[in-house]
Amino acid sequence: MDEKSRLLILVTNDDGISAKGLMHLVDCVKDKGDVVVVAPDHPQSGMSSAITVGAPLHITAHPDQHGARVFSVSGTPVDCVKLAMHSILSRHPDLILSGINHGSNSGTAITYSGTMGAVMEGCMNGIQSIGFSLLHHSLKADFSMSTRIVVDIIDKTLEHPLPFWTALNVNIPALVVPKGARVCRAARGHWSEEYERYTDPQGNPFYWLTGRFVNDEPQATDTDEYWLGEKFASVVPVTPDQTLDSAIPALSNIYDIN
Amino acid sequence: MDEKSRLLILVTNDDGISAKGLMHLVDCVKDKGDVVVVAPDHPQSGMSSAITVGAPLHITAHPDQHGARVFSVSGTPVDCVKLAMHSILSRHPDLILSGINHGSNSGTAITYSGTMGAVMEGCMNGIQSIGFSLLHHSLKADFSMSTRIVVDIIDKTLEHPLPFWTALNVNIPALVVPKGARVCRAARGHWSEEYERYTDPQGNPFYWLTGRFVNDEPQATDTDEYWLGEKFASVVPVTPDQTLDSAIPALSNIYDIN
Repeated sequence: MDEKSRLLILVTNDDGISAKGLMHLVDCVKDKGDVVVVAPDHPQSGMSSAITVGAPLHITAHPDQHGARVFSVSGTPVDCVKLAMHSILSRHPDLILSGINHGSNSGTAITYSGTMGAVMEGCMNGIQSIGFSLLHHSLKADFSMSTRIVVDIIDKTLEHPLPFWTALNVNIPALVVPKGARVCRAARGHWSEEYERYTDPQGNPFYWLTGRFVNDEPQATDTDEYWLGEKFASVVPVTPDQTLDSAIPALSNIYDIN
Repeated sequence: MDEKSRLLILVTNDDGISAKGLMHLVDCVKDKGDVVVVAPDHPQSGMSSAITVGAPLHITAHPDQHGARVFSVSGTPVDCVKLAMHSILSRHPDLILSGINHGSNSGTAITYSGTMGAVMEGCMNGIQSIGFSLLHHSLKADFSMSTRIVVDIIDKTLEHPLPFWTALNVNIPALVVPKGARVCRAARGHWSEEYERYTDPQGNPFYWLTGRFVNDEPQATDTDEYWLGEKFASVVPVTPDQTLDSAIPALSNIYDIN
């Protein structure tokens, strides 16, 4: 197979270039094409779709790992995708994979997720894009039981390309071989008890984010939170277009101003 | 009117506490209730829905301005909304207003917008939330011609509360009194020529974000880009829920795994 007919696969994440989940994802796809890793040079959890607008960015080339070319970028996950396409890759990739995240991006966590920020950036550029997250925060999390589901979902995407402006947010239960996978919607919820308050040695208060996700739909059986509880991987189709088209007619009656 | 029956209005932005657009927004609502400003202590453009997860946050109280209590936070726009609700305000606000941004958040710019990150955070907490942006990047932008539209839209929201998990992204043409406002969808597009490449004094390359938004739907007459071109304010209903519900049945046939 010549170079042009081989798949070009970009792998990124938000936990940074040293995260264990990143290389597990590379291992899942290294036989499927040419894999290039472009990941943040330090952890970028919670960075959502942030971009670096007022500062320079640096690209560092690293030795190949697990058969992949490896680069780090001094910015956010979205910066990694943008710079990869602008300055590292010879052409747009066929597939962008982000993760495997150390920790959940189910429910409304997607809003803050740097893992999914990278996915949304790929999707907006017309590239098949999937984010993977394991429900285990530890740096030493065991990703081995996620391999089959990750590979299956990637294979299905290669066989049946995702619709226009549609990407996937895949969450995977931890410490278990998933029973399977279910396509579902993200559970709506909120965060509670969000900050710990401290006092510094000079007597000034400071605050540190904490808190936990509260599922506001605990009875629903069609959400990612439900299926993860059942030990299935959740596959949520997502779109970068945040317009609520269904609200346009009713709101036009209120807000159209002449 | 006693304190409990007065509206509590939180005003924030992503351009930071010193931005001219912030105090213009305060002026637009200062007669409507108790206004509290909680804004980033330095510019946070492009921060999307980013949160600060691995570092402390500080709150600084400032003298009242334009009749509002004023606080700055050493974090992102979403941090400002979260900390305001957790540690500054005595109760959840009735209304969250973000802006007025110095520069457009139309089209796909919403994805990266810190202005709209704050709005999405409010919306996920069940609070009526609106983001305002003026199509003029200058620190000295003239916001005076936007006043009528901003006040009209806020009044309409107070009279007709927005549906569940629905917020507004309002963009306003610059250097003109808007002809009116139109409810519409966000134009889809992409960014081109995204980085300028430089070489530092040691001969190492670095990159700086630049580029321009390319509207991929220049013929469409139902988008925010279209109506802004017609010198109307664009009012896009948006939702923090990125699930593409319409894709679930077809994708279930592909991705459900047993």
